Amino acid sequence: MDCLGDAIRFKVTDNDVRSAARCGVVETPHGTFETPTFMPVGTQASVKSLTPSDLRSAGTQIVLCNAYHLSLRPGAEVVERLGGLHGFMKWDGPLLTDSGGYQVFSLAGLAKAGDDGVRFRSHIDGQELFLTPERATEIQERLGADIIMAFDECVPYPCDRGYAKTAMERTVVWAERCKAAQRRRDQALFGIVQGSTFADQRRECAERLREIGFEGYAVGGLSVGEGSGLMTEMLECTIGHLPVDRPRYLMGVGTPQDMIEAVMRGVDMFDCVMPTRNARNGCAFTSEGRVRIRNLKYKEDDSPLDPACDCATCRTFSRGYLRHLVIAEEITGLSLLSLHNVFYYNALMRRIRAAIAADVLVDLLNTVIGSYGE
Amino acid sequence: MDCLGDAIRFKVTDNDVRSAARCGVVETPHGTFETPTFMPVGTQASVKSLTPSDLRSAGTQIVLCNAYHLSLRPGAEVVERLGGLHGFMKWDGPLLTDSGGYQVFSLAGLAKAGDDGVRFRSHIDGQELFLTPERATEIQERLGADIIMAFDECVPYPCDRGYAKTAMERTVVWAERCKAAQRRRDQALFGIVQGSTFADQRRECAERLREIGFEGYAVGGLSVGEGSGLMTEMLECTIGHLPVDRPRYLMGVGTPQDMIEAVMRGVDMFDCVMPTRNARNGCAFTSEGRVRIRNLKYKEDDSPLDPACDCATCRTFSRGYLRHLVIAEEITGLSLLSLHNVFYYNALMRRIRAAIAADVLVDLLNTVIGSYGE
Repeated sequence: MDCLGDAIRFKVTDNDVRSAARCGVVETPHGTFETPTFMPVGTQASVKSLTPSDLRSAGTQIVLCNAYHLSLRPGAEVVERLGGLHGFMKWDGPLLTDSGGYQVFSLAGLAKAGDDGVRFRSHIDGQELFLTPERATEIQERLGADIIMAFDECVPYPCDRGYAKTAMERTVVWAERCKAAQRRRDQALFGIVQGSTFADQRRECAERLREIGFEGYAVGGLSVGEGSGLMTEMLECTIGHLPVDRPRYLMGVGTPQDMIEAVMRGVDMFDCVMPTRNARNGCAFTSEGRVRIRNLKYKEDDSPLDPACDCATCRTFSRGYLRHLVIAEEITGLSLLSLHNVFYYNALMRRIRAAIAADVLVDLLNTVIGSYGE
Repeated sequence: MDCLGDAIRFKVTDNDVRSAARCGVVETPHGTFETPTFMPVGTQASVKSLTPSDLRSAGTQIVLCNAYHLSLRPGAEVVERLGGLHGFMKWDGPLLTDSGGYQVFSLAGLAKAGDDGVRFRSHIDGQELFLTPERATEIQERLGADIIMAFDECVPYPCDRGYAKTAMERTVVWAERCKAAQRRRDQALFGIVQGSTFADQRRECAERLREIGFEGYAVGGLSVGEGSGLMTEMLECTIGHLPVDRPRYLMGVGTPQDMIEAVMRGVDMFDCVMPTRNARNGCAFTSEGRVRIRNLKYKEDDSPLDPACDCATCRTFSRGYLRHLVIAEEITGLSLLSLHNVFYYNALMRRIRAAIAADVLVDLLNTVIGSYGE
């Protein structure tokens, strides 16, 4: 194993007796976060409709931003001059940036990957751009998050074995190039396991990344349409090949149930747009399952969005008022629902950590399955 | 003079020695507000992009809502069942509702005024509706604001003398009908002076409303395109005919300069969408004049939006970050600019009150004119 950086420290504090779930603490240059953890997505250096103080009041410990979006607008150099991401967005806690690998393939036009990098068109103005592992690393160093991600090639689902293999091998080589390109010692670089839905490729990718050595490991390319069963299967054949003493991050997941299932396979970190995107569509995650607030039955409902929730939205407003705001297209409705959903996700993580400590994670899973009727 | 209600108490605390400006305090069933005061507009029971706690932190003392919008959606009866406006929107301070007179003529389709009321089409779904002084009063009683407005007929500008006269006379008769229709004793009813840009009609309307007797008097139908000069002239020929011991409210005004000019003519209350609407267009009111935050020159500007401002936005974020949020169409950018602009308007009112007390209101007017280069 190569010499590792030491920008972050990870300590496992508890192991579940019935599953691979564990609790831990990650120390970063901007404070600690507890695992399992959820990172709300602040794509453009803003978690949509929320301020940093809203995020704090929602119990957020770490935020994710997207290097792809920020490098296009306002530009990594601009963010750097305005204090790096922490100073720019005034979030003084832990931050993670995604490398842009996923975004260039999912958002940008005409992405073409070669061995050297990816040629693509900006989704904003169509400008042709070229992103390499070295440039992705430089961008993330300028942005200055505490955790940065290797630049990977994401394949769509379904994907044939040969294409998946080429992309996986490129991902390994690129991860090594990202590590070699790193200049800052105060940022932890995570490798990303690819390999589509092929168990042997996932395993090979995990082992090769582990040989290179990273401060943490992500599982990428899942939650792209393969379904919960196949996702769980891929996690099971991947995580055993990752070191136990490094954080494991499942990218882009997910529903409350999927997150608990993943925690049981040993995942420590999640990010997902679900809480904020659902909020903007008028859908809340609650102890009573999904509440679609536009529903007529809430018109004169004076109870809180979630009677079991302690967030500012639930402590203050009625379902009837929230329904009115959403139907009348008032921006405040989106903010109040987003605040609740992010609070719900963070509270779920607290409940997961408590359940691991008390060895009752299966009970929590069953409660959540019961709430959501899935 | 007819017997007046006593839902509110108004006390003049200071008179300017050089103008008709005065300071005062209004006591309402939901607390007091100081005059001259500014009311941010919460058309649909929400000041766009802000929460009640944001409004408090911006120094807001009283909020305006629109009976027209709320009667269409979610309906006055729904608001009533959810606790009235105070309980519905969770603003526990003073509230004022506009009657809908202005809205049915400016927003609704095909408004036709007869002596009995106005037939119009909902701007939301085209439904044909009929609003009378009695129904407008009933709606506002269900909404439950501390101050309610008489139902008036607003004419466009320019307007011929005959049409203006008919509308003014109807406005007087309707105001009397609103007063007769009042059932609640805990709401102050204000009459509205109309008369377009005709001094004799303004004067007649003011005198006749005064004879009927209201707890406060508004000047309506201004700031509709007639220009600041004509607006000031109309104020001058109206306010002298209103009682000195009742609050005077200039509806829908305005710019910082227009508000100070109006205060000098004896106006105590204002409402306007300018601070929130301008914020949503990326324009901030500052001690350095208007800041159009999209301007390229702010791209790497790490100074606050207004170096002289103490609002949460100015204490926390840079112009560069705010510019990024607005250009990237992040909702949070609108909230942060709205918070600042409402804070600015409330701070301006505090400065106006202090300037009246110190007899330096003209100096403040000149400072504001200097800032805005008008």
